[in-house]
Amino acid sequence: MRQVAILGVGQVPVREHWDLAIRDMAVDAARAAMDDAGVDRVDAIYVGNMTSGAINQQRQLGTLVADFLGQWGVEAVRMEAACGSAGSAMRQGIMAVASGECDAVLAVGVEKMTETPGADTTTALVGAADAEFEGIQGVSFVGLNALIMRRYMHEYGYAHDDFAPFAVNAHANGAKNPNAMFRKAISAAAYSKGRVVADPVTLYDASPVGDGAAALLLVPAERAPKAVRVLGSAVSTDTLAIHDRRDPLWLEAAEKSAARAFDQAGVGPDDIDLFEAHDAFSIMAALSLEACGFAERGQGVRLAQEGDILPHGRIPISTMGGLKARGHPVGATGLYQLAEATLQLRGEAGPAQIDGARIALTQNIGGSGATIATHVLAA
Amino acid sequence: MRQVAILGVGQVPVREHWDLAIRDMAVDAARAAMDDAGVDRVDAIYVGNMTSGAINQQRQLGTLVADFLGQWGVEAVRMEAACGSAGSAMRQGIMAVASGECDAVLAVGVEKMTETPGADTTTALVGAADAEFEGIQGVSFVGLNALIMRRYMHEYGYAHDDFAPFAVNAHANGAKNPNAMFRKAISAAAYSKGRVVADPVTLYDASPVGDGAAALLLVPAERAPKAVRVLGSAVSTDTLAIHDRRDPLWLEAAEKSAARAFDQAGVGPDDIDLFEAHDAFSIMAALSLEACGFAERGQGVRLAQEGDILPHGRIPISTMGGLKARGHPVGATGLYQLAEATLQLRGEAGPAQIDGARIALTQNIGGSGATIATHVLAA
Repeated sequence: MRQVAILGVGQVPVREHWDLAIRDMAVDAARAAMDDAGVDRVDAIYVGNMTSGAINQQRQLGTLVADFLGQWGVEAVRMEAACGSAGSAMRQGIMAVASGECDAVLAVGVEKMTETPGADTTTALVGAADAEFEGIQGVSFVGLNALIMRRYMHEYGYAHDDFAPFAVNAHANGAKNPNAMFRKAISAAAYSKGRVVADPVTLYDASPVGDGAAALLLVPAERAPKAVRVLGSAVSTDTLAIHDRRDPLWLEAAEKSAARAFDQAGVGPDDIDLFEAHDAFSIMAALSLEACGFAERGQGVRLAQEGDILPHGRIPISTMGGLKARGHPVGATGLYQLAEATLQLRGEAGPAQIDGARIALTQNIGGSGATIATHVLAA
Repeated sequence: MRQVAILGVGQVPVREHWDLAIRDMAVDAARAAMDDAGVDRVDAIYVGNMTSGAINQQRQLGTLVADFLGQWGVEAVRMEAACGSAGSAMRQGIMAVASGECDAVLAVGVEKMTETPGADTTTALVGAADAEFEGIQGVSFVGLNALIMRRYMHEYGYAHDDFAPFAVNAHANGAKNPNAMFRKAISAAAYSKGRVVADPVTLYDASPVGDGAAALLLVPAERAPKAVRVLGSAVSTDTLAIHDRRDPLWLEAAEKSAARAFDQAGVGPDDIDLFEAHDAFSIMAALSLEACGFAERGQGVRLAQEGDILPHGRIPISTMGGLKARGHPVGATGLYQLAEATLQLRGEAGPAQIDGARIALTQNIGGSGATIATHVLAA
């Protein structure tokens, strides 16, 4: 297996893109990654996307992107693992290069969720849960996360306000990222007054859906000795339904995929300079920090309260706004995380730069912890 | 890259399965493949499926299959390339084993299209076309194939009845396959009187959608010296919209993926003992035969008329009924083709057995030729 490097990065700002179709956003991000890499032909394109069939009435998105990118004839496919789709696309892209099968690959994540006539986003999103045992009860995807958050508060004795540091940090960091959807810092007091979406999840606990696309161009590391390298890449799964898990407050797939990625990379939690966590909900950020070994069980919130997740803290997270402030175009998110981590490791994160960042971790979560892709990158 | 072998085969009969959910069918096929192989733990599961988000309100199908198969923690993802989804899942499974990353992989194709409340199959299927330039015109997927067939008849001077041998052969062969949806031979006279679906496509030119699942268990060939081997595997793409192609009567992605698969295998069209073609429509069977080198341009229909596609002909196709008679559960079809080819090469095809079959070709087509996966297998 060859080591893989990230030679190009491309992003479309996360917005409500009234003027862009799903193909436009994907092509813009992919073209930016190719230009950044100075590569004009790839061997394969893996497109992560969650809802294009239902929301955009468009399938075969891999082929559509290849087509409108002018990469006719190239191998292409769409990968779907709900909100973990782009992390899975990255994983396949890495495997294609690592195996020697391909020498230049695009991993693209794209989602077009707003300004789409007839789109039923809430119905599409609950498809991430178990349709026959969760969705059929009428629960929304936010509702499922609310159940987990409430249980966490009960088990470990936290109040809602204790989660404020996740939102405050994410919004402060998002203010420094031109591609972020929300670019305004918020106070703990504002968090405290956030409108309830599904008790106890408030507006500031939940990430906003949006339109966006992010892409990475992958090559064998031997061809790009100075580029950011992929040290570890793993996907693990858990039961789809929360009620089937041994412990609804423990992300087994996060623990397993992180352990595998750390093992491949030969590093551990103490070596990580920044962590792009999947903070679709505040509770997911806490559980992800715990499962990856940055905090003991039930202590993820305390870690945030102690300031360890801030840009100058022990383990900075959501350094460019995270899902909360950059925005969460669901099937694209995993590649936004990887794009941001790559910019950090290049020292190109602008005002959001984490000083001396050399090793980064990203974790992309599909469903309520059902499919989790973890990557370790190094400068 | 390691050579890959097919150690296990599993299929659910293609039917209207009133009593089975999508997860049941996928798990039944996967379990059958694992039992056939004598393997009880896999490293990864790649699930090909086209419409589960829109029709079954279920996403993360890879993870769902892993979950209900009892393969907790395993890597899993869903692959989507419209009707080419299962061929793409096979391609990824092969790459995972060939690369050395995995030692046992399941490639599963599954689709649940009937007896699903509120399912709008016609809308879901036209998502295989270009939504903004084809679908938006109100054309159905059958309509697109009707346009191609009409043009073919015009260019090469064929009458509708000239296509009869494709349907007659498929239905005769399907009668010998217990997993086929239609198990009754038809006559050329019956074909001639088929009801029009979208002129000139009649009921016998179009394949029936249905519910089904097929799975293969893949391992390194060195661990299964007597198992059927994968000699070639390639995916190629074309423009999504037919009007963007240089020649709407030539499947460039079929030509390219077949050339690559033949090259990997070190064989050519003359070495192929049977061909599981993607006869979703009669015209697609003709175009596929031409693009793979079995007939000259415009001569695919003539090849059929001359009896070459029959079980004892030069290049038997649709040997167990093809999409027309076995049925076409869209995202599962590619793996039904591969499962049938594997049974043929094992000499386990029962009354449908092609004598002395040693090398088989399969071709799975997404959209009207947009994503094409071609595989070469050998006994």
